[in-house]
Amino acid sequence: MAKRKIIMLVSDGLGDRPSARLEHKTPLQAASTPNLDELSVSSSLGLVYPIAPGVTPGSDTSHLALFGLDPYIYYRGRGPFEALGADMDLGPGDLAFRGNFATVDDNFMVLDRRAGRELPEAPDLVSYLNERLKIQGVRVALRHTTEHRFALVIREAGREAEVTDTDPHVTGERILPCKPKNASPESARMAAVVNSITAEAHTLLESHPLNEKRKKDGRQKANAILLRGGGTLSELPGVPVRYSLSAACISGTAVIRGICKALQIETPRVAGVTGDSKTDIKAKARAVIRALDEKDFVFVHFKATDAAGHDKNPELKVTMVEKLDQLVGEIMNGLKGNEVFAVTADHSTPVDLGEHSADPVPLLISAPDVFADGGRFTESAAAFGHIGRLRGLDLMGVLLNQANRVEKFGE
Amino acid sequence: MAKRKIIMLVSDGLGDRPSARLEHKTPLQAASTPNLDELSVSSSLGLVYPIAPGVTPGSDTSHLALFGLDPYIYYRGRGPFEALGADMDLGPGDLAFRGNFATVDDNFMVLDRRAGRELPEAPDLVSYLNERLKIQGVRVALRHTTEHRFALVIREAGREAEVTDTDPHVTGERILPCKPKNASPESARMAAVVNSITAEAHTLLESHPLNEKRKKDGRQKANAILLRGGGTLSELPGVPVRYSLSAACISGTAVIRGICKALQIETPRVAGVTGDSKTDIKAKARAVIRALDEKDFVFVHFKATDAAGHDKNPELKVTMVEKLDQLVGEIMNGLKGNEVFAVTADHSTPVDLGEHSADPVPLLISAPDVFADGGRFTESAAAFGHIGRLRGLDLMGVLLNQANRVEKFGE
Repeated sequence: MAKRKIIMLVSDGLGDRPSARLEHKTPLQAASTPNLDELSVSSSLGLVYPIAPGVTPGSDTSHLALFGLDPYIYYRGRGPFEALGADMDLGPGDLAFRGNFATVDDNFMVLDRRAGRELPEAPDLVSYLNERLKIQGVRVALRHTTEHRFALVIREAGREAEVTDTDPHVTGERILPCKPKNASPESARMAAVVNSITAEAHTLLESHPLNEKRKKDGRQKANAILLRGGGTLSELPGVPVRYSLSAACISGTAVIRGICKALQIETPRVAGVTGDSKTDIKAKARAVIRALDEKDFVFVHFKATDAAGHDKNPELKVTMVEKLDQLVGEIMNGLKGNEVFAVTADHSTPVDLGEHSADPVPLLISAPDVFADGGRFTESAAAFGHIGRLRGLDLMGVLLNQANRVEKFGE
Repeated sequence: MAKRKIIMLVSDGLGDRPSARLEHKTPLQAASTPNLDELSVSSSLGLVYPIAPGVTPGSDTSHLALFGLDPYIYYRGRGPFEALGADMDLGPGDLAFRGNFATVDDNFMVLDRRAGRELPEAPDLVSYLNERLKIQGVRVALRHTTEHRFALVIREAGREAEVTDTDPHVTGERILPCKPKNASPESARMAAVVNSITAEAHTLLESHPLNEKRKKDGRQKANAILLRGGGTLSELPGVPVRYSLSAACISGTAVIRGICKALQIETPRVAGVTGDSKTDIKAKARAVIRALDEKDFVFVHFKATDAAGHDKNPELKVTMVEKLDQLVGEIMNGLKGNEVFAVTADHSTPVDLGEHSADPVPLLISAPDVFADGGRFTESAAAFGHIGRLRGLDLMGVLLNQANRVEKFGE
């Protein structure tokens, strides 16, 4: 039998719990999802623990697991994926962070972690820091990503370099001193470098004319940077070589694009695919079908379900599930019918919790010869599907098997 | 409660997927299986990943796992099991292969991997090679098994010896040069020895009178040997000691008999038990019941379901499932009713795929005090049975527990 192509669609934070605000339904149960319903009739269902029962995944660790890489082995912080996702180059010993512009007082006490959130000046402030931020003996590079956010890379920090966040993650506390996370000399040196960067950036930003203007306008100064997720890129096995698959990723979300780049998955830019609730569903589906012409494996990421969960907004999450359903329908229209089409999530973001949870996520696998479960695609139906329970690390093997692409172990 | 006896019946390649050629049923679903149906009514059902989700097992690696031995630790190639199954003795440093007689041209290009498949001369050619094949400094022994097949052993190769196949596994390619699979001097030496054997065997066979006659008759010459699965026997824990069980195996299939021998399971020869579709079901069942008089654990292997899957023949697989059902019925007739009787498979061989797959396999456990599922014994029913999902490595423990034979861990 011919090898099949694989589409893996991950809806970020899709999983949920019954919510009193949705008549004790989950957003998946409450939403109108005609396309998923149709797909589900001929699909096997199951639940996936993205990492393990009782482990709440980040999007980064979960995606590593869903691509078959144990995050306990390969994960060294989100920074490197954010930097790659922002199209920065990253060498093996480069130490990368996610960064925020923030507002602090004279004692480095954080008044606003996002400098008022409205920060159209962010690209200019990034350019300014790139020009003026000089730390003895190291090269530092920043790149603006979205809103008040940027990626920051310290070049040639050393492969062992691993340091703590300076971001206290709450307001009303001082910027944290950066500390080494292991005993290597690189980590000790980098902790000192990061602390110098924090101090120097504050000095430079505090007196910047744009901040003077913001102050005059009664807005929060963007007078500090907060860094988190600092790490170097581990040596990651590429998806194409590991699974003998040509592979593409359709996503507008920086960290996901960065993970895919790190795993040698091609990441074409698609106009209109924005990684938020305004993403152009038809453009995204067209990009998937186009990628499927050339590639064996197409990964698609849908972000907006997660954001609605973080916003604790059940109605918005229902709407975003319905948008996901449109994406599924548009993709179905372009398929030939002999593909393996999987829909799942990287973690749950329950609307009543507003954070990621460790709940298992629903999985649907459609292919010409699966054992069909015949129900709707919901968390509860998935709990009783033919697939049973998998761990994230098992998913690629299960999909490759359904695509008739697994090599035999033994004879 | 008294300890029970255990029968483990493995139907090779039994698992399957819904096939359009069987009205979207699997062979197990499509077959008439009155005995399995009757047994199933008082049985617990479940699914087994013989090795792990997404891993396609060979019969050899799977059987190791089903007997509780991790193939990632203990498996070193199929050759040693084939040699043991052919009743050859095997010392700890002996390097064993499976071999085929094949037809090659003057450039060692493989024209037919099975020398026309009809090869009644094979035993004579094996004797001839045993007499005449002389390689400086090593002892080589062959034994004929079935049709065009034999086992070949290089004595005292060294425990570390591990080399690649010379069999290209397809026609139209040259015999592969044998290469070492690890950095040990034994492997390097053995790769050279195997290449000498290949060359010398070709010279000897090319001019053999039987081949001259085959040529005159317009049949393919058996003028080369192809070797695969080369390895030494790892130190395997015996089933009887490991589980405090006396044990016997009823099987006509060389590799299975070899694995059982390697695990210290007795392997009586039973007249009529042939390891193919013609096997005498009644003789096999009688042998099982007889063995059960003396042994705590009787392993039974039924081969023909796998062959039908490899042949991509759904009707034949249905017929072989019905033959399996007869075997189950004959065994049931001989039981006292207080045994643990398990029926499962070593892997799936879907009829539409024609190869092993990584799909989980159905498991049935009958015993006086199981939670009965009450359905038929099918892949789909097994997905919703009381047993849930197991891995192959868990099976022996689960059966021993049902037989009231598991010792406590802790107090």
